[in-house]
Amino acid sequence: VNSKVFINGKFLDPDQATVSVFDRGFLFSDSVYEVIHVDGNKLFLFEEHIERLKRSLSELDMDFPNYDFLTICQELLKISPVDYGGIYIQVTRGTQQPRSHFWHQKKLLPNVVAFAQSIKRPEKKALKAITYPDLRWGRCDVKSTSLLANVLAREEAAKNSCDEALLVSSSGWVSEGSSTNLFVCRNGVVKTPPLSENILPGVTRKFCLEVLNELAIPYKEEKLSKEELFNSDEVWITSSTKDVLPLESIDGIELKFEMENSLWEQVFNRFKEKKLKSLK
Amino acid sequence: VNSKVFINGKFLDPDQATVSVFDRGFLFSDSVYEVIHVDGNKLFLFEEHIERLKRSLSELDMDFPNYDFLTICQELLKISPVDYGGIYIQVTRGTQQPRSHFWHQKKLLPNVVAFAQSIKRPEKKALKAITYPDLRWGRCDVKSTSLLANVLAREEAAKNSCDEALLVSSSGWVSEGSSTNLFVCRNGVVKTPPLSENILPGVTRKFCLEVLNELAIPYKEEKLSKEELFNSDEVWITSSTKDVLPLESIDGIELKFEMENSLWEQVFNRFKEKKLKSLK
Repeated sequence: VNSKVFINGKFLDPDQATVSVFDRGFLFSDSVYEVIHVDGNKLFLFEEHIERLKRSLSELDMDFPNYDFLTICQELLKISPVDYGGIYIQVTRGTQQPRSHFWHQKKLLPNVVAFAQSIKRPEKKALKAITYPDLRWGRCDVKSTSLLANVLAREEAAKNSCDEALLVSSSGWVSEGSSTNLFVCRNGVVKTPPLSENILPGVTRKFCLEVLNELAIPYKEEKLSKEELFNSDEVWITSSTKDVLPLESIDGIELKFEMENSLWEQVFNRFKEKKLKSLK
Repeated sequence: VNSKVFINGKFLDPDQATVSVFDRGFLFSDSVYEVIHVDGNKLFLFEEHIERLKRSLSELDMDFPNYDFLTICQELLKISPVDYGGIYIQVTRGTQQPRSHFWHQKKLLPNVVAFAQSIKRPEKKALKAITYPDLRWGRCDVKSTSLLANVLAREEAAKNSCDEALLVSSSGWVSEGSSTNLFVCRNGVVKTPPLSENILPGVTRKFCLEVLNELAIPYKEEKLSKEELFNSDEVWITSSTKDVLPLESIDGIELKFEMENSLWEQVFNRFKEKKLKSLK
């Protein structure tokens, strides 16, 4: 890997890229992050991600760090171009020694980490998902690194040779995937769970809703039950690095989805077109 | 600070003590920890903490690292003796590059961090607490570093000049404090919430129940409502570095607690005696 990792103003080799063990991100998952999608070495929806980063920081009473993230991203992409992937940015509350649960209302110096990462461009192919209990904390609208529940769910999906885990609350509502937002369609109407403290306000989710608007496809933001998942004509997931992709099975049960003439394909094509125009 | 930090077999100066930014503990809070209490430079309930560490690791499908933690603890206490405090141990799933939510069932090499930390010996004094929404994830019985909900609650307590935040679920049950277990007494009977996925199986909680047994003080492990907190004769919190301490107020409301002739004082005295015999 010939990429670099940005840490607090320096661009370091990945094996030199470290943080203190007294960093509150490491000790308490007291940190937030973003993944800004890169396609053809260009940034997608950069401003929207930075806006969400600001919101996450503000919700945790942290200041926005004094860095020009656009320049950092551009520098990272200059050092190692990314055909498809993302730029990961993490901001922690900072290093605090001795370790203490609270930070005494003192503003610490945040630790800022950023790196570019290439992934395989997703094929135009339906994915498989499992359902899994939603064990996440009560503020999933804040994009924090308190992700243990998410990664356990995602690993369970991988164990079952699936691509995503759809998270179901104890009362039977499906909120989203472990790192994706969720859409279903039935009889030509699209539905996605409304923003709440259990849902990440997905940048790609919002972009997808704009695409639906442009295509005049009706949609509603309403709570979604596990039963509805299986009674839908189509189920899609969205994320920064997946754009919008359909599912072909959930919990091993085949969905009746056919790619050809699907609502998804209309949305996918318009999404792609609109995305190309938005890349910077 | 002339202490050292153990990392993966080496004892390093605190400012040299770093982990990779690709550590899964840092990126995903995919790690577990323990704080082993030290009094008079001796370890308290070492085996019990290691047992719980084993359980936490096993619940997350991680192997117990191949280190002799007793020797590590003793070495840390030799380098910098601790009159009162603890030894912090953290085990992460390991470093994984590129960043990926799942670890593909591959066993990574865990990162192991340990350091000694001195704190002020608590006074024999009643504490103040607030109540705060329990926003934690669904597996609080696993002592993971997914602690963002805990530290936000604890900071809110500090903002209100209080010592602890008691966590109340949306249905009105009080589970425990942000880093303590909870006991109440009414009419000579002690009550503490039963172990569940919302409760950390506290090593000090268990030790305190043993003390109650020895003193033939009746107790029950039952769910506890927020109302009961305020209707109790005494409210205590327990933790590895606090032993057992009473509260004098919650949410600014004075409790009727009097230290003299309290049930707490009986328990505190026996706890201290029993503790002295258990230090190693």
